[in-house]
Amino acid sequence: MTDAKRKLANGKDFIDFQTDPSRYRHWRLSVTGEVATLAMDVDENAGLYEGYQLKLNSYDLGVDIELADALLRLRFEHPNVKVVLLRSAKDRVFCAGANIRMLAGSEHSHKVNFCKFTNETRNSMEDASEHSGQRFIAVVNGTAAGGGYELALATDRIIMIDDGSTAVSLPEVALLAVLPGTGGLTRVVDKRMVRRDHADVFCTIEEGIKGRRAVKWRLIDELVSPSKLENRVTLAASELAAKSGREGPSEGVKLKALDRKFRADGLDYGCVKVDIDAAQRIATITIRVPDAALPASADDMVKQGSQFWPLQSARELDDTILHLRNNAYEVGTIIFKTEGDPASALAFDQYLEAHRDHWFAHEIRHYWKRVLKRIDVTSRTLVALVEPGSCFVGTLAELAFAADRSYMLLGQMQGDNRPPAKLVLTRANFGAYPMSHGLTRLQSRFLAEQGKAAALEQNIDRALEAEQAEELGLVTFALDDIDWANEVRVFLEERTSFSPDALTGLEANLRFAGPETMESKIFARLTAWQNWIFQRPNAVGEEGALARYGTGRRPAYDMRRV
Amino acid sequence: MTDAKRKLANGKDFIDFQTDPSRYRHWRLSVTGEVATLAMDVDENAGLYEGYQLKLNSYDLGVDIELADALLRLRFEHPNVKVVLLRSAKDRVFCAGANIRMLAGSEHSHKVNFCKFTNETRNSMEDASEHSGQRFIAVVNGTAAGGGYELALATDRIIMIDDGSTAVSLPEVALLAVLPGTGGLTRVVDKRMVRRDHADVFCTIEEGIKGRRAVKWRLIDELVSPSKLENRVTLAASELAAKSGREGPSEGVKLKALDRKFRADGLDYGCVKVDIDAAQRIATITIRVPDAALPASADDMVKQGSQFWPLQSARELDDTILHLRNNAYEVGTIIFKTEGDPASALAFDQYLEAHRDHWFAHEIRHYWKRVLKRIDVTSRTLVALVEPGSCFVGTLAELAFAADRSYMLLGQMQGDNRPPAKLVLTRANFGAYPMSHGLTRLQSRFLAEQGKAAALEQNIDRALEAEQAEELGLVTFALDDIDWANEVRVFLEERTSFSPDALTGLEANLRFAGPETMESKIFARLTAWQNWIFQRPNAVGEEGALARYGTGRRPAYDMRRV
Repeated sequence: MTDAKRKLANGKDFIDFQTDPSRYRHWRLSVTGEVATLAMDVDENAGLYEGYQLKLNSYDLGVDIELADALLRLRFEHPNVKVVLLRSAKDRVFCAGANIRMLAGSEHSHKVNFCKFTNETRNSMEDASEHSGQRFIAVVNGTAAGGGYELALATDRIIMIDDGSTAVSLPEVALLAVLPGTGGLTRVVDKRMVRRDHADVFCTIEEGIKGRRAVKWRLIDELVSPSKLENRVTLAASELAAKSGREGPSEGVKLKALDRKFRADGLDYGCVKVDIDAAQRIATITIRVPDAALPASADDMVKQGSQFWPLQSARELDDTILHLRNNAYEVGTIIFKTEGDPASALAFDQYLEAHRDHWFAHEIRHYWKRVLKRIDVTSRTLVALVEPGSCFVGTLAELAFAADRSYMLLGQMQGDNRPPAKLVLTRANFGAYPMSHGLTRLQSRFLAEQGKAAALEQNIDRALEAEQAEELGLVTFALDDIDWANEVRVFLEERTSFSPDALTGLEANLRFAGPETMESKIFARLTAWQNWIFQRPNAVGEEGALARYGTGRRPAYDMRRV
Repeated sequence: MTDAKRKLANGKDFIDFQTDPSRYRHWRLSVTGEVATLAMDVDENAGLYEGYQLKLNSYDLGVDIELADALLRLRFEHPNVKVVLLRSAKDRVFCAGANIRMLAGSEHSHKVNFCKFTNETRNSMEDASEHSGQRFIAVVNGTAAGGGYELALATDRIIMIDDGSTAVSLPEVALLAVLPGTGGLTRVVDKRMVRRDHADVFCTIEEGIKGRRAVKWRLIDELVSPSKLENRVTLAASELAAKSGREGPSEGVKLKALDRKFRADGLDYGCVKVDIDAAQRIATITIRVPDAALPASADDMVKQGSQFWPLQSARELDDTILHLRNNAYEVGTIIFKTEGDPASALAFDQYLEAHRDHWFAHEIRHYWKRVLKRIDVTSRTLVALVEPGSCFVGTLAELAFAADRSYMLLGQMQGDNRPPAKLVLTRANFGAYPMSHGLTRLQSRFLAEQGKAAALEQNIDRALEAEQAEELGLVTFALDDIDWANEVRVFLEERTSFSPDALTGLEANLRFAGPETMESKIFARLTAWQNWIFQRPNAVGEEGALARYGTGRRPAYDMRRV
């Protein structure tokens, strides 16, 4: 069953992460002054795949793609929105969570990547709250089960209707033999700090918890009678808006459709190019920095809008990563390359730094931060090749630090008169883009040498050639052109011969040296356990809970504890 | 293949965690003054199971059981030993790691529990170093591969012979399609703080890294020529001994054989009793506190030796947990009960607290800490039943805090004239027994209420009845005798009906609210990923790397990345 490949609905042949509100089937985004409402109204006949119906506001990846899009637009298109009400447009149901038929019929790889993306989307809500003063209120008007409650958990405040029947629940363990895998368990004990024994009770009661106990156990923040609900929500929105530091204009920047063209062996965006070598199972992502003149003013930057290179490149890179993750399982290695004039890239970084308090620059940098975090948890070997003509400067240099390995060419390549490659640190490498575990990539890289990451600030804006970059520990290997081709080829060939599963586990462990945070715990402890369970016959076997759900037959479990 | 149950060697029908140096087949423990030598000399014909030979100092669980025993004896029997040399008694090989044939032929459950135990054993080396001034030096005289290098990683200093061929390596990913799962990946980047890209290179080079690069990359501490090795080891031992705070007498406390009797439905120790209800899949562990008079003096405590109740109970409980984990997979739930006079238990705790600087009391408390940590990572539902006649006081109350849930009886049981149950906090609940993630169980329990754990100190040594214990959040439910039997029965029945895998994942996530440390990362991030990989066909399938290792046939991998 787990390998029964589902068909995408409507004859589609890949999962598209691009959408816009005019195409939403499941959400309605409306804005009134400082308050936006994201109303979930899942079209049960518009599932991403064939073979199931999205009843009761249950969701699949397609629903979450729209949510992620809406959240991104709230950041860029609605800089004045301080509060977002997350509501259901359906009666007596908030959200029934991930669709069980969808899960039951999905391949392991889809389940894992579905959970990863939904986790990232939930994190982006918390990121908006923490960094852009955009607070979220979940208005739970009826059942919030499983992923539905996990959605509420990602908000700042959970207001639940006191109608005698509405409950919040995480019924996965009892009903489906899997975990609430979209951050639920971690958020219950680490964010809402529900006492662990209460959490144990809550997560094993199919029907969930309602009423005063839900407040007392910290599962929700408020319980409000039906007649007072709307007034209370309005008041709560005002309270949160008053505390928000968000001070954007009423007009934001419209995120226009990406310029994206598919070809047989890859795809092309405006400044990102993806070349897929199917035989070697390698995707090469090349990011090009234009020579374009910088905006003359902040107004001009806003006028450039989604064509402003730092934003355009972030969107294109984000789409690339999601595309590869979900549509190209056969790709095992991602190579990052960059092209352009280092002076241009440096200028963009300096420009963003200088305008860091401008709402648009602020949002761009936080978006780059999230894109880089997405790369960190991408289960592909990541390699950076720093060659003549490349442009690993500041923000783009983070790609080299996110990579599992980087190679830099010493000097020039025979027959190529371009100057030797340079790597440049900018202020952006020292705090703008923390990883999910809270450290910058340089801090995590140089855990052994206290103060080294900070000392590197002396090199800000200096062009570092390969010897220096290697000496400073910024690249893994510096190779001359005699060794380059051979060493890189042997490495890539060897890498692609290893078990993809073992590499995934290896990389997930080595990339995050140092502390863990709630966010990183979700991708480590919770996700890894869920992935384990997603392979166990008790969940996904023919007699397992996912297959038997709704059939009237009880699952047959192997009762041995591992 | 993964379900091909192996036969234990020599007709044994369970894995015994009890041993003593006279029975060691794989290690030699010798002591000269302040320096002990633990020499690994694996008897290749003395594997725990039939069907493989432990060549080249490769190991299985049986080898690690002896190591764990030796480490415990070093704490108690050798209070004057300040430095332990971890060496190989074989020529040109330090340790080849976990035996691959053993892994290839093991059930998933055995692999998982084997890794868990070896991780705990490595942690106990670090615990000895940090808390008892017993420093470890690995003397790497030849190949230290996989688990062999992981063993070295658990020491304070790694000295490697510079013979031109000796290397350290973690070849698991390349050779076996699994992870170095005994803490290796985490220790490489979090303990030794090897740069992540260097770690990536190291962990994918089958032959490992030798010579100066091993030092430069922080994989080892020193490289010493063969002719100078012995002198250097002696000197390093003196250096570390000089810095140790350990000041025990030359005579320690002999750990006598446990008094343990198996019966059809459980087993009995001196003060611990285990009753297994096979139909319900529940093991009830009852710990009895004796009325025995306290030792009149510290000398008298030492004279009581391994019969001193706090030590005896820790050893018996430790053996119980290990026995259930490894020999009773069908048991899904562990119920903790206690028996005895709360005044006695309180007196023991106060006695240990008063003598906390005495080496023997110090070791006992740290041993209890490790036993409690072992319980925290035990993949069984843990329940505490606090009833009349029970004795959940201080150290024993930690069992209630380690439990996923606790039930306490309000008042008396009809027809039972014993006084109502009491729960008592002692000083020991406020720091003596931190969890692997660094917090006490009370701190982790009350994460939501800053200062609450500390405020509870006001209740030290006070007998708390059920209402108070519930009010203070120390038990999950307080029930009167009308509800008790029914509620507890329904809970246990329901619990045992759930998927064991989902419960394992649930509990592993809810038990560790708060920060993560290197130690907890090993049991979370690393272990969970390894468990995932241990189920993947690329590792354990018929064409997978474990099955094909040594056959001359290359494994056939499903190359899709999940």
